Amino acid sequence: MGIIVQKFGGSSVATTEKLKIVCNHITKEFKKGNNVAVIVSAQGKTTDKLISEEKEITSSPNSREHDVLVSTGEQITISKLAIMLNDLGYKAISLTGWQVPIITDSNFGNAKIKSIKNETILNLFKEGYIVIIAGFQGITENGEITTFGRGGSDTTAVAIAASLKADKCDIYTDVDGVFTTDPRIAENVKKIDLISYDEMLELSSLGAKVLHNRCVEIGKKFDIPIVVKETGKENSTGTIVKNSKSLENMEISGIAKDDNITRITVMGLENKIGKTYNIFKLLSEHKINVDTIVQSFGESINKNLSFTIKTADLTETLRILEENKDSLTAKEILHFDNLSKVSIVGIGMTNRTGIASKMFEALYESNINMHLISTSEIKITVLVNQDEADKAVKAIHNKFF
Amino acid sequence: MGIIVQKFGGSSVATTEKLKIVCNHITKEFKKGNNVAVIVSAQGKTTDKLISEEKEITSSPNSREHDVLVSTGEQITISKLAIMLNDLGYKAISLTGWQVPIITDSNFGNAKIKSIKNETILNLFKEGYIVIIAGFQGITENGEITTFGRGGSDTTAVAIAASLKADKCDIYTDVDGVFTTDPRIAENVKKIDLISYDEMLELSSLGAKVLHNRCVEIGKKFDIPIVVKETGKENSTGTIVKNSKSLENMEISGIAKDDNITRITVMGLENKIGKTYNIFKLLSEHKINVDTIVQSFGESINKNLSFTIKTADLTETLRILEENKDSLTAKEILHFDNLSKVSIVGIGMTNRTGIASKMFEALYESNINMHLISTSEIKITVLVNQDEADKAVKAIHNKFF
Repeated sequence: MGIIVQKFGGSSVATTEKLKIVCNHITKEFKKGNNVAVIVSAQGKTTDKLISEEKEITSSPNSREHDVLVSTGEQITISKLAIMLNDLGYKAISLTGWQVPIITDSNFGNAKIKSIKNETILNLFKEGYIVIIAGFQGITENGEITTFGRGGSDTTAVAIAASLKADKCDIYTDVDGVFTTDPRIAENVKKIDLISYDEMLELSSLGAKVLHNRCVEIGKKFDIPIVVKETGKENSTGTIVKNSKSLENMEISGIAKDDNITRITVMGLENKIGKTYNIFKLLSEHKINVDTIVQSFGESINKNLSFTIKTADLTETLRILEENKDSLTAKEILHFDNLSKVSIVGIGMTNRTGIASKMFEALYESNINMHLISTSEIKITVLVNQDEADKAVKAIHNKFF
Repeated sequence: MGIIVQKFGGSSVATTEKLKIVCNHITKEFKKGNNVAVIVSAQGKTTDKLISEEKEITSSPNSREHDVLVSTGEQITISKLAIMLNDLGYKAISLTGWQVPIITDSNFGNAKIKSIKNETILNLFKEGYIVIIAGFQGITENGEITTFGRGGSDTTAVAIAASLKADKCDIYTDVDGVFTTDPRIAENVKKIDLISYDEMLELSSLGAKVLHNRCVEIGKKFDIPIVVKETGKENSTGTIVKNSKSLENMEISGIAKDDNITRITVMGLENKIGKTYNIFKLLSEHKINVDTIVQSFGESINKNLSFTIKTADLTETLRILEENKDSLTAKEILHFDNLSKVSIVGIGMTNRTGIASKMFEALYESNINMHLISTSEIKITVLVNQDEADKAVKAIHNKFF
């Protein structure tokens, strides 16, 4: 008798009809003799609707109260699903974030899980209950409702799985797993049957929208296999994300793309310790997320620093850097708009030079210019013009698969 | 510096525009230097919408989960109201039923308040907060969400007022107080400026829809003045419900009407101890509410018993009584459909006979037949044909006011 955690996202629970399909997935595992904990998101566009109603009041809501408001979405789903399972003759019970409880910090709107008390869930398992848990929400030590950032329900699911030492965590979604790249861009994409946590982390952070980073990180830390499956498919095998051993012989696992990147280059920085740090400290204080960073040394006394930001943050970033140009000792601040980040990922990338040259060859053959190159142990990222990004993904996919 | 509790019902908080009016009422009391606790219902038709979605799933939902579902309605209102007050520059904070906490029994859907812990609210007052509390909901000692029955938010408000020893509890609603009778029936109705708890209790239980019995009972027990006011009116003085002294010289306070009553008469009961009790025990087990009861003794060995029920319960009541006719020793069970209950209420009813004859005179002059008469210390109730009820109210109103 195992412990299975299942997670169903907003579109999987959007309607009463869809909830019936969800019930099938749940009761199938339950009837095998498993203890089942189910994590759900808010139904369909519920959260969007609450936020648009909130915008009628103000564009800058009190963050504590915002969380009280949006957390109702998941509470509606858990109760409906529990009502349906009870109506089908199963013992099912719902738990909100505070009922579990899932203890978080008090960073409203983007709270991080500090701990999960698993006694309530384990006791309900003993009494024979299927336990339905609200994703995306928790409670501070002071008893205040918090919600998580993007991908919050996935994170709840894997964290609950970790706290229960579950056999696996099934993430049900719109697609039948993780693919070598976005099926809307390249043809002949392949479903990845097995992928390591590290590769999945790179793919997630590089723009693959299937799983959120935080949830993969927790899976890795507590060694919980995560299975990405399609809700609408009867016997989806999906993609298994698990420990990396034995996967070494794959060349690359997948290709990811992230649009609306702007590259910033700070020219002529004094070549002294702390100058680079000052820039990122400043941007961090203004909550600007900085991505790929490349530093190149020019003449002896100056250096140039390049990094990418979301295009949406461009105006704010330029304002901050220009205002502090002197104290940062920067000569000039340049920016290159509307780029896309295209990355290949694979832990089998032992012969990195070979893989990189194969990737660059594909881009060269398609006449695509690269604005920046950055590599890590298991990925190679290039920046290309946004209007050539899909062509780049297609070319690279054809070269490797 | 006093403590004021305000309650706003579903129609008073239905839209963002209406929430602004609510904010005016709140901040007006707050700016006078008062501590203000505000109890709100779900917005407009929110609860109805949740229940109709629930009905898509099943007509007999699990009662625990039903409460998890419908309690989200008030949670949405408290957060929106707190967001709006914060946006206006006030310190305001929301509390759900479990955050207060309002401890209830575990009678889901119709829970009763067992106790209210007032420390959190008092501490928030000390920190200068306006405290916004979800009406209609609480938490059991086991940490399960409960909701109250009809009039639940009024009950929350007066119970919170009692626990805070508030100076008064303002119930904001659609009408400018309690009237001598329903303005839609009789002309020249008068607003009652002052009414005792007991009179209000009689008017509530007899069909006046302004305040629910449970909230008036709590007000009486803890001596909290309840003021019924109109949300949309700038300086509504409303009706004050408070202790009865000094009101003795009023003849009657008001006239109430309750439609869709059916009278049941059980004929020929054995005149033995326990026979009457058996009938009401049986009906109570089937959750049939019995109202006005009249017992008349016929010949020495038999008695007849009459009582009223809601017309909606008629089929079920007849079935139960017919099935148990023999054990109840009843000869015949009669029913009289579609009656209305018309009552006059007044604690100044010292000369009851005089008042009663004045009431009966009004009905006689209008040629209205009375099917049953029942009196208590402060009220006189008659049953009349439903289609003559409005005429009866009008005639009595004209006679007394």
